[in-house]
Amino acid sequence: MGALEEAHLAAAVAAACACEEEDDDLELLAGEGEAAAAAAADDAIEPAVRALLVGLGEDELREGLRRTPKRVAKAFRDGTRGYKQKVKDIVQGALFPEVGVDKKTGSAGGTGGQVVVRDIEIFSYCELCLLPFSIECHVGYVPSGGRVVGLSKLSRVADVFAKRLQNPQRLANEICGALHSSIQPAGVAVALQCWHIPLPENLECKSLQGWIRTSHSSRSGVFEGENSTFWSDFMALLKLRSIDMEMDNHSVSISWCPLRSLEVPLLNGHCKKSAANGIISPKSVPTPSNMVSAVSSMLLSLGEDIQRKELLGTPQRYVQWMMRFRACNLDVKLNGFTLNNFSVYERPGGDKADHEAIRSELHLPFCAQCEHHLLPFYGVVHIGYFDNGSGEGIDRSHFQSLVHFYGCKLQVQERMTRQIAEAVYSVSHSGAMVVVEANHICMISRGIEKIRSSTATIAVLGQFLTDPSAKACFLQNVLDTPGLAI
Amino acid sequence: MGALEEAHLAAAVAAACACEEEDDDLELLAGEGEAAAAAAADDAIEPAVRALLVGLGEDELREGLRRTPKRVAKAFRDGTRGYKQKVKDIVQGALFPEVGVDKKTGSAGGTGGQVVVRDIEIFSYCELCLLPFSIECHVGYVPSGGRVVGLSKLSRVADVFAKRLQNPQRLANEICGALHSSIQPAGVAVALQCWHIPLPENLECKSLQGWIRTSHSSRSGVFEGENSTFWSDFMALLKLRSIDMEMDNHSVSISWCPLRSLEVPLLNGHCKKSAANGIISPKSVPTPSNMVSAVSSMLLSLGEDIQRKELLGTPQRYVQWMMRFRACNLDVKLNGFTLNNFSVYERPGGDKADHEAIRSELHLPFCAQCEHHLLPFYGVVHIGYFDNGSGEGIDRSHFQSLVHFYGCKLQVQERMTRQIAEAVYSVSHSGAMVVVEANHICMISRGIEKIRSSTATIAVLGQFLTDPSAKACFLQNVLDTPGLAI
Repeated sequence: MGALEEAHLAAAVAAACACEEEDDDLELLAGEGEAAAAAAADDAIEPAVRALLVGLGEDELREGLRRTPKRVAKAFRDGTRGYKQKVKDIVQGALFPEVGVDKKTGSAGGTGGQVVVRDIEIFSYCELCLLPFSIECHVGYVPSGGRVVGLSKLSRVADVFAKRLQNPQRLANEICGALHSSIQPAGVAVALQCWHIPLPENLECKSLQGWIRTSHSSRSGVFEGENSTFWSDFMALLKLRSIDMEMDNHSVSISWCPLRSLEVPLLNGHCKKSAANGIISPKSVPTPSNMVSAVSSMLLSLGEDIQRKELLGTPQRYVQWMMRFRACNLDVKLNGFTLNNFSVYERPGGDKADHEAIRSELHLPFCAQCEHHLLPFYGVVHIGYFDNGSGEGIDRSHFQSLVHFYGCKLQVQERMTRQIAEAVYSVSHSGAMVVVEANHICMISRGIEKIRSSTATIAVLGQFLTDPSAKACFLQNVLDTPGLAI
Repeated sequence: MGALEEAHLAAAVAAACACEEEDDDLELLAGEGEAAAAAAADDAIEPAVRALLVGLGEDELREGLRRTPKRVAKAFRDGTRGYKQKVKDIVQGALFPEVGVDKKTGSAGGTGGQVVVRDIEIFSYCELCLLPFSIECHVGYVPSGGRVVGLSKLSRVADVFAKRLQNPQRLANEICGALHSSIQPAGVAVALQCWHIPLPENLECKSLQGWIRTSHSSRSGVFEGENSTFWSDFMALLKLRSIDMEMDNHSVSISWCPLRSLEVPLLNGHCKKSAANGIISPKSVPTPSNMVSAVSSMLLSLGEDIQRKELLGTPQRYVQWMMRFRACNLDVKLNGFTLNNFSVYERPGGDKADHEAIRSELHLPFCAQCEHHLLPFYGVVHIGYFDNGSGEGIDRSHFQSLVHFYGCKLQVQERMTRQIAEAVYSVSHSGAMVVVEANHICMISRGIEKIRSSTATIAVLGQFLTDPSAKACFLQNVLDTPGLAI
């Protein structure tokens, strides 16, 4: 550990405390008063989450799930904290005098000098299905009255409205309206690019690949009207960052939320009939009424009006999503394929240097549900195994079924990696190696918000363990094969 | 504003409160007890910041600076909060049982199945100069004893040590050591890629271009030793994300912190003799002793031992940095060029469509100091003006001097944009247009941590205001000219 200052570290590490629970991520964000109110709300949310776990066929008391209701309750509380936040508190005190120029001369500084903050990365929650969605938010305003607002406040105000149950257009409108009211500028422009996770069977391997994309904007004051030069300047300043709102602008359609899309007749071409990753799932799954009731009680605890029209089908949709990850999901179970279909392979001779015999199936997409947070993690699986010397490998679709079987449930990445490796090893006795690369929504939408982090796990069995060059050969193969960026 | 729900919004916006101060960004992060302790510390930091402002020739009471001492004190408190955080509090309760496989079979899951979280984006503070530095942190560990740790905890523990005054190698060592002690795995690997902002005169236009880069790693347990297969697996999993530690690995040299580099004889080739952006600044500037004392008192208030060897020259270095942005910086003032050197241009004829007459100087780099937070913002300036018809433009170096003059001081982006536009307009009476694109360190290292956000401001004077096609022509010119990504 090099020049580690042991004493310094020991002091930091040794100070054990009686704190029994994790998830201080979120505790940090809640004030004392809020915590008390939230505790009452949690009382209703936690039993609801337990009901969901039981409905999914899980043992709610097993170690990995024991504190899941608490974590989920905290995440929902944090994800809807925006209802309690006041825009005026944020903007007040952050308005600074800034002279401009005479209006006849032009627009600059505190009078007309447009300010645009681009690429503010935020998350919100789809009111139709309760899953988080990803947003690139771009905010512009035209100062008026010789005053400007602190730049960070544009982002903070956007987040107030993102931390609610939302749809993209209302989010754009609310950010725009709130900034206009609180800053009182000549105008406000808001442009959002939003991504919604698709149904698990439509996820492709790459980051945001296969996600449902939509763009929305909202404008007030000098940005309004077809010929607003401020609006065209706003668009031009976005284009400097390669953001082209005009190219992909379309209204919220029923295809925005894939759970909503399931309920209505498919529009021509909007929804793929067959899944992108080769796994065919049923269009809809059963939604037990006790689970639906549980989600309704969660919404009530969050202070939502469950009678407002956008939320009417939300509990069913959330249960639809969750049920796709239920234990022993017979509908997708190995897709008619069983492990017996694998041939039992023998390594040719004992030649450890014979890396021709190593076969690999790479970039097999998956979408699992993190059992700690009930949020998706998704990515790709790379599988390595030894050929039986016949030159014939196992068909890719078999591996995809295997990945789907172990992936499409409440999981943790470490366990899924091991399970897939063991399954492959059970039929390819010489050796099996699995690398899983995944993005965890819980690492993004909760607490720490590490948007670009990506987790890799590895399992190395049999020959791959004893022959480092075989392992290196497989890893090099993964590296050399395109399409791996997740 | 489209379908804006006015009533909903009005309720959120109207609820004015008596909150006088902004910067709730940071308040949110401090508990009640900490806030009290911090208030005492602030008592010493705020006067020190005021002394710095006076030393920079600023009016500490002007509106933009009035609350700067409070903001800076809060930022330093937040930036060093890691001293008070306990790793054990974070990891405890986040260890989950996870079975592995028999050691003879291989390494997977809770016994030997390596887990790597890549691309954790964090910030720390250079102990040599007090400026924040940017880090891509990659953490791996090998589970042992059938238990794994919640993924987010790797990021949270890294942040505990980042939120201190640091150097990159110690940061790597401390993260590694703390994770090893608290998780008790078979081993921990930490790899950091760090970027330090250079001296203002060495900043180039693009994001991180011109920044000083260094890579560091630390390892424990099974990752140790030259032939550790776990270490080579760790490196391979990083390479899958195009992270190549071996390519740019070098030890901390004196060139890491550019303020430190100023103090010692230059090593061959390590420091550029001439500035990248054409502005030559003095190698060092005066550091008034009262300002140096003020920074020492800040460090004491933060609980630092100002006698430890790394901190011995830190107050001088911080003042060195700040003094480069002092008001009326005669050393760089227009670089011997005055505005009178501009010719007074007349537009040829009255032909508004004659966009041949529009000239532009694009991607002029700058580094300013945000007057609200005393942290750098940097980027590029694009200038448009009308030619006098002779076909001869103003030399680029004159514009660069102009940008440097208005940029290299305590500023806000809106004002700088207006000032540059007015200066150009004063000599090119037909019209002037300025677009500034900047990254604000205060948007990254403080509170909201919107790492990729980029702010654009625009000033439109004279002919560019009345002739939208002239403005559009200039903006298109900016868009069409490469090298703009910031």
